[in-house]
Amino acid sequence: MHPSPSTDLSRAAALAADAADPLAGFRARFTGTDDDGPDRLLYLDGNSLGRLPVETPAAVARAVEQEWGQGLVGSWADWIGHARRIGDLLAAGVLGARPGEVLVSDSTSIDLYKLLVAAADARPGRDVLVCCADDFPTDRYVVAGVAEQRGMTVREVEAHVDEGLDPGVLAAALDERVAVVVLSQVAYRSGALVDVAEVTRLARAAGALVVWDLSHGAGAVPAELTAAGADLAVGCTYKHLNGGPGAPAFLYVRRELQDQLRQPIWGWFGQRDQFAMGPAYEPAEGVDRFAVGTPPVLAMAAVEVGVRITAEAGVERIAAKGRALTGLVVELADAWLAEHGVSVASPRDPARRGAHVSLTHPAAWQLTQALIDRGVVPDFRTPDRLRLGPAPLYTRFVDVWDAMARLRTVVADGSWTTYPTERARVT
Amino acid sequence: MHPSPSTDLSRAAALAADAADPLAGFRARFTGTDDDGPDRLLYLDGNSLGRLPVETPAAVARAVEQEWGQGLVGSWADWIGHARRIGDLLAAGVLGARPGEVLVSDSTSIDLYKLLVAAADARPGRDVLVCCADDFPTDRYVVAGVAEQRGMTVREVEAHVDEGLDPGVLAAALDERVAVVVLSQVAYRSGALVDVAEVTRLARAAGALVVWDLSHGAGAVPAELTAAGADLAVGCTYKHLNGGPGAPAFLYVRRELQDQLRQPIWGWFGQRDQFAMGPAYEPAEGVDRFAVGTPPVLAMAAVEVGVRITAEAGVERIAAKGRALTGLVVELADAWLAEHGVSVASPRDPARRGAHVSLTHPAAWQLTQALIDRGVVPDFRTPDRLRLGPAPLYTRFVDVWDAMARLRTVVADGSWTTYPTERARVT
Repeated sequence: MHPSPSTDLSRAAALAADAADPLAGFRARFTGTDDDGPDRLLYLDGNSLGRLPVETPAAVARAVEQEWGQGLVGSWADWIGHARRIGDLLAAGVLGARPGEVLVSDSTSIDLYKLLVAAADARPGRDVLVCCADDFPTDRYVVAGVAEQRGMTVREVEAHVDEGLDPGVLAAALDERVAVVVLSQVAYRSGALVDVAEVTRLARAAGALVVWDLSHGAGAVPAELTAAGADLAVGCTYKHLNGGPGAPAFLYVRRELQDQLRQPIWGWFGQRDQFAMGPAYEPAEGVDRFAVGTPPVLAMAAVEVGVRITAEAGVERIAAKGRALTGLVVELADAWLAEHGVSVASPRDPARRGAHVSLTHPAAWQLTQALIDRGVVPDFRTPDRLRLGPAPLYTRFVDVWDAMARLRTVVADGSWTTYPTERARVT
Repeated sequence: MHPSPSTDLSRAAALAADAADPLAGFRARFTGTDDDGPDRLLYLDGNSLGRLPVETPAAVARAVEQEWGQGLVGSWADWIGHARRIGDLLAAGVLGARPGEVLVSDSTSIDLYKLLVAAADARPGRDVLVCCADDFPTDRYVVAGVAEQRGMTVREVEAHVDEGLDPGVLAAALDERVAVVVLSQVAYRSGALVDVAEVTRLARAAGALVVWDLSHGAGAVPAELTAAGADLAVGCTYKHLNGGPGAPAFLYVRRELQDQLRQPIWGWFGQRDQFAMGPAYEPAEGVDRFAVGTPPVLAMAAVEVGVRITAEAGVERIAAKGRALTGLVVELADAWLAEHGVSVASPRDPARRGAHVSLTHPAAWQLTQALIDRGVVPDFRTPDRLRLGPAPLYTRFVDVWDAMARLRTVVADGSWTTYPTERARVT
């Protein structure tokens, strides 16, 4: 277990935790981490967009200038394998999956659509899709779209907004009508974690498939897809995997299922013997059949750097530090902010938390703006959530301490009341 | 009309045509064009992957290092508008469309799927999709997949493999059962051009919608979508638009149709008031409803450079030079290669040609390999086509002349016979 400063909430204890941090060396691998002054930027939004690794500009420049500029079309000899090769790095180093099960491709929303339709097709005669009423919008919307297109019914299960989904509530929603369950491993607002293995077992017992959305957890908490028996998953590489804004997503299909499934968008990169350009679509063997169009090779250069750093640090170590960092947020919130009307809106049990914590306050939007003006970057989630994501690879305990101290100042001196309200923003 | 060297096939005439070329200055805007020696690389594959503009590395580095590295999540204030903003540049400068009609998004295959499903939904009661039997694989495959998913029938019209699609043949395939026609403006093998306005009129008369695939023409020949009355189109930015390998594609939806259509992949970037994260999907107004997931903003920096250069040069001027360059290929092939069994497999009428020419020879694969070893990059298309795409922005008449001279040497001296056959490659 990672050293936690939880028994001593002093700044000195935070500094001591940093001195004992086995991941401390990774901070220098990210740009913007060299300013150590008292007014430095405290970036707690790596759960939305991860920081830029120091190696990434050169990797992208190499892809642009050498591979494209000089290698031209001949570079396709290498590029053609990137989606699988980087997928295998993700599988082995981050997701706990086997070679040939992960592909870097498209966006999370599109990968979710592909796997959801494939899964629904694999459960003929079942007419219900299950999702979580508090899940990230794109998950709920994609489910609704597929249901409408296919004449299926959506069954939304309720999660506790702060504590996450109770597996018993999910179990009660599973019956012989359910074809597919779509669920995030880590809830986007509360950061609540669900047990992939447990939900997979529940769904399988009911004859349903689960498509996991690992977006808010990949690179921050273990997925261990093979050990969990997971069938299908998608996820994002621009959050905890530090792959860059709008970086391509990934999809995972358990090896034993691949040849039974077909996805609905029949593009030429999913075709067997692609360059024969034959008359009829025949899906490639293995995970390649879930590819569609020409892969975004320049963007993948950045994804590869992020994935390698995460694999090198180790997801278990990252998750352990993440629990300690978010634990410090929770303890400081209780100690400093509760009296000012700010409450913790995430699970208090570290084993049930992903890598971010939400705080709630009726004026969360104003607090967010006031914090940004004081050099702390959180994010806001409607209607009243302030999300703090201390990324273990580059956030120190002292950064969390200082950010919470600035938040304490903002709430205590009432300066947030001078900022426009959320209502003013959206209208 | 651009000066054509067609009356004089000497190298001096090619040099004279270059001296009179109003686009000559654009060549220096691309990397790898400064070697002027007799053994220089002659890149005639810009129709597959366009060259790297000189400005692109700095534009990408700025997006990576400043926007991502320093601006972090705050850069979304700008990034959120990139898909529309660059779409508007494409609309005005390249496609002849109006503001708010073009979005940079996803891949060509995925954009085609989205618009095809939207179009089929807009023609209820019609059960036939029409495509061209000789069209690019992804077009035919996407059509087949949508047809299977919806229980529709595919009607494939035959095009002449060298001369392209006869509009009369298409007209004969259009009746009250046809919901949507999918068709490439420029055929990927022959380079044959179809008239967007004429086909649009034919389809409209039959009550069908056309989804144009502009991949092989965008940036090389005018589309003039508004003037042609086109309803829907998709296309690629990594060929003649020089946006980089796997660069995001674009989609076009005529303004008057946008609010009547819905696409099937309901992602959060297509949602009205996206950050309200509301319970139900409600498509955004306008072309934004055709967006799905988080857009690939780093890759878009490269797309923007390519689009701006094309718009600056002007598609009409590019197309005029393209006709002259491909005309020179045709005339030199007739003069030098016909006696060695190489024939022109593209329309001879320049008005019916896109920006590449195919030559046919039973050993086209071996000729391709021999040419690459002699510093000419063409590409091969199964079974017997050698494709030459002299990109007007950076290919000179003398480059075409020298490439054809090297090809003449290869076919005349029989050295290609020492290369393995296509059969050896694919087995």
